[in-house]
Amino acid sequence: MSKQKLLRLTIGIIVSSICFGNNSFAQDKKQMVRIAKIVVDSLQLENYKTALKENVEASVSKEAGVITLYAVYDKEKPTHVTVLEIYADAEAYKAHLQTDHFKKYKTTVAKMVSSLELTDVIPIAFASKK
Amino acid sequence: MSKQKLLRLTIGIIVSSICFGNNSFAQDKKQMVRIAKIVVDSLQLENYKTALKENVEASVSKEAGVITLYAVYDKEKPTHVTVLEIYADAEAYKAHLQTDHFKKYKTTVAKMVSSLELTDVIPIAFASKK
Repeated sequence: MSKQKLLRLTIGIIVSSICFGNNSFAQDKKQMVRIAKIVVDSLQLENYKTALKENVEASVSKEAGVITLYAVYDKEKPTHVTVLEIYADAEAYKAHLQTDHFKKYKTTVAKMVSSLELTDVIPIAFASKK
Repeated sequence: MSKQKLLRLTIGIIVSSICFGNNSFAQDKKQMVRIAKIVVDSLQLENYKTALKENVEASVSKEAGVITLYAVYDKEKPTHVTVLEIYADAEAYKAHLQTDHFKKYKTTVAKMVSSLELTDVIPIAFASKK
């Protein structure tokens, strides 16, 4: 194979991996994946969602090691929030806890959260168009 | 702004949105988002995971309306599986149920699953590097 062809093939594979939902990157063994289940005081729900959204967006955009944060609430029980969290590794998670945006979030929501349950999980399959 | 500049800006925005984790697309109001909690017979766990992985990968790669399927199991309770499901809309979900790969999955796992709980959820914030 010519150098040029090899280069074209390599670029093609990289672009496909980044852009078209190839999920092999997401299955890195070092990754730390977790589900957080949070129950929120109903009177504080809107404030809580605003603070969580801010923290999710700041964490993924500012921290290289925060891969994915998906936060949702139950349609039938809107005070029940679930967050799927994917960090590059345990170090990235430790670093996340020390960021200004995470500390601000924890302080803001301290009196809004009535329970928090953290479950470490292991990926079976991750596939996404984005 | 010249036509050329506008074109360049437009292309830039599209490429950024696709490649660099801009999550605005993921918050489409029509999207159907769900958490499935499945408890699996411990003797069938490996077979179940194989069947689930096959279904996840086929669904996202073959169906335009299946946006994301993230399947994990609890580290402490490996028979407890959770799947975060994102479909483009309710129609895409209905179409998913009629596909050969989904029907094959349902038949294969029928005797492996001891409970299945489906919870409709609403996004608060989705952010991901992929």
